[in-house]
Amino acid sequence: MNILIINSGSSSIKYQLLNMPSAQIICAGIIERIGSIDAISSFTSKDHKIERTCTINNHREGLERITELLLDSEKGVIKSTDNIDAIGHRVVHGGSTYTKTTLINDDVKKSIKKLSPLAPLHNPANLVGIEMAEAIFKNAQQVAVFDTAFHGTIPVKAKQYAIPLPLYDEKGVQAYGFHGTSHKYVSEKANAYLNNQKTNLIAIHLGNGCSITAIKNGKSIDHSMGFAPSNGLIMGTRSGDIDHSIIFYMVDNLGYSLSEINELLNKKSGMLGLTGYNDLRDIESQASNGNQKCMLALEMNAYRIKKYIGAYTAAMNGLDAIIFTAGIGENSSLMRKLVCQDMSHFNIVLDDAKNDLRAATIREVNTIDSKVKILVVPTNEELEIAQQVYQLLT
Amino acid sequence: MNILIINSGSSSIKYQLLNMPSAQIICAGIIERIGSIDAISSFTSKDHKIERTCTINNHREGLERITELLLDSEKGVIKSTDNIDAIGHRVVHGGSTYTKTTLINDDVKKSIKKLSPLAPLHNPANLVGIEMAEAIFKNAQQVAVFDTAFHGTIPVKAKQYAIPLPLYDEKGVQAYGFHGTSHKYVSEKANAYLNNQKTNLIAIHLGNGCSITAIKNGKSIDHSMGFAPSNGLIMGTRSGDIDHSIIFYMVDNLGYSLSEINELLNKKSGMLGLTGYNDLRDIESQASNGNQKCMLALEMNAYRIKKYIGAYTAAMNGLDAIIFTAGIGENSSLMRKLVCQDMSHFNIVLDDAKNDLRAATIREVNTIDSKVKILVVPTNEELEIAQQVYQLLT
Repeated sequence: MNILIINSGSSSIKYQLLNMPSAQIICAGIIERIGSIDAISSFTSKDHKIERTCTINNHREGLERITELLLDSEKGVIKSTDNIDAIGHRVVHGGSTYTKTTLINDDVKKSIKKLSPLAPLHNPANLVGIEMAEAIFKNAQQVAVFDTAFHGTIPVKAKQYAIPLPLYDEKGVQAYGFHGTSHKYVSEKANAYLNNQKTNLIAIHLGNGCSITAIKNGKSIDHSMGFAPSNGLIMGTRSGDIDHSIIFYMVDNLGYSLSEINELLNKKSGMLGLTGYNDLRDIESQASNGNQKCMLALEMNAYRIKKYIGAYTAAMNGLDAIIFTAGIGENSSLMRKLVCQDMSHFNIVLDDAKNDLRAATIREVNTIDSKVKILVVPTNEELEIAQQVYQLLT
Repeated sequence: MNILIINSGSSSIKYQLLNMPSAQIICAGIIERIGSIDAISSFTSKDHKIERTCTINNHREGLERITELLLDSEKGVIKSTDNIDAIGHRVVHGGSTYTKTTLINDDVKKSIKKLSPLAPLHNPANLVGIEMAEAIFKNAQQVAVFDTAFHGTIPVKAKQYAIPLPLYDEKGVQAYGFHGTSHKYVSEKANAYLNNQKTNLIAIHLGNGCSITAIKNGKSIDHSMGFAPSNGLIMGTRSGDIDHSIIFYMVDNLGYSLSEINELLNKKSGMLGLTGYNDLRDIESQASNGNQKCMLALEMNAYRIKKYIGAYTAAMNGLDAIIFTAGIGENSSLMRKLVCQDMSHFNIVLDDAKNDLRAATIREVNTIDSKVKILVVPTNEELEIAQQVYQLLT
């Protein structure tokens, strides 16, 4: 079964074509900077690599470009759109309705649209991707895999806020959680590695967005991102947790408008706001050259992760393993080191030599004596989506 | 030395006259509902108890009423205002400047005024209290004891937010911490009880306001209330931690104004917003009669405290004792039980029988085997303020 994975962001579309159940990647690529005259489209297959800059005005044109690349008579990988059996769409927000991978019909599309205010940058783009894909790949089954779904098991006491009840009961204001596909994938890999399904795991997803999940017996029971993907850990440009009073203070005393603050907290905060740099590799290199701001930002980042590890250990009353994943989690040995140092009370002890080794597979970087395993697990959201689509359809 | 303690809230003045160093309470009382025609003034001395309802328009009139009561020819406790040697003023916000108890002069008053935007309900009232006391008790030394002072030792990595640096460097946007007088008092009592100054303590102050502090070797190193006394734990009417995105969502999609949200989060949220009840005794009684909302609210409240205990154990890499204090912390055996259950991984094990006993002194409510002590420590902010004033002046 050929499954095309489509992951539409606010200004990008990532795609991957996989054959299932072999999980063979037929091709993969990304369209970036959608909405500009210098959008970039890339395509990589076993035999070819194409990268081109051109005008792509919107997601519709982006998906048309991807179809062209797939069907290209010389470098393409399929002969006809009918060669695609199913399309797996990453959809960011499924609200409290969609806690499972779902075959798309008109009702599902209406719901995704209705949930757009909860994910204004993502759900509308996801919907365009679905509608375009339906028009182009007429014979493919369309499936939605929701980023929030894995967190559907979070109990009410952890997902409700202490605000007037009607906001929860009638307006859907609650913690939803994000990065679910990644947290599910890496926690299942970890349980398989530990050869145990009854585990207390903490999965730490550190990429452009960062989040952390408490996973008890394979189920998400708490998560750092709440109502929107903006709070919790310190991210590239997002603040993560702040005292909400700061917003009122900035409006009343510092002359900010609410939309300026929203933009500031999402696009100018986090590691960028603290250091002037967005990319963690730059920040680490600056820190190693004595830049105090960069060193402090790394310590703040790690300190917040430490506190979530403590909090989630309390939530589960136990801890078997912590999992580092995604770009930073998999590649930054320094960030792992800062998080794990002085955590002996939690039986978390890093092996520095193992931690410094690089590998593309699951690995253990704790000392032999460390009762809590420290795992580095490469995430693969596309494969997870493909697996879920395949399971649903077979 | 006769020290009068004045604690001015937004619509109340609590006062206590102590003789130091004996710590004998000469009289104590409160003026409530300031600004109304049915304000209540109370006065209790060894021999007399007075309670009266009358019009008290402002803090100035409140302090005049207190002076009348102190000087009353029949039931009063002093002959002349000169019999007061010093006045200890509780001041809520000392900013980053005042991390110690301070003799009040014009500069200090200017600073308290300047810090008013950070504590708009409290600092202006505190300042009126100071100015009135200066006018009435001309020969008394006036001393400010700041609620933020104990938290002056919180390291930068814990007090800075991941927002653009100028907001911290130039605008003072950082975590300050509150309830410092109480946290200092109970942690010192706990260290004396444990006969150890090198401890990792977590102090849980549960009153009208609620907050939790990580105290390492006697110093505050992290605290749940940040920039304002509004986030962290779930309180009587305050939400504590929420995802800040909810504010933007409520304005953009639910038609709220920013001032309505501020009021909602501070006065209509917390236990009141979840249950319709403000007083924890009512909520506990409702819960025991099968009210599900009340039971859930208690569980949410305890769950958040548990997570902070975990987080601060990680921050300190160890834990010797947790301390329950203030109205709810000292009196609600149910809340202590909900917090401590399923915390065996942290070596926190409650002794239910001991927990159900009531006493007005420091006591241990853990099992003999519990490695972490669970202490109930009655707080006494007035005595702590009097001690600090006495130490400063002698």
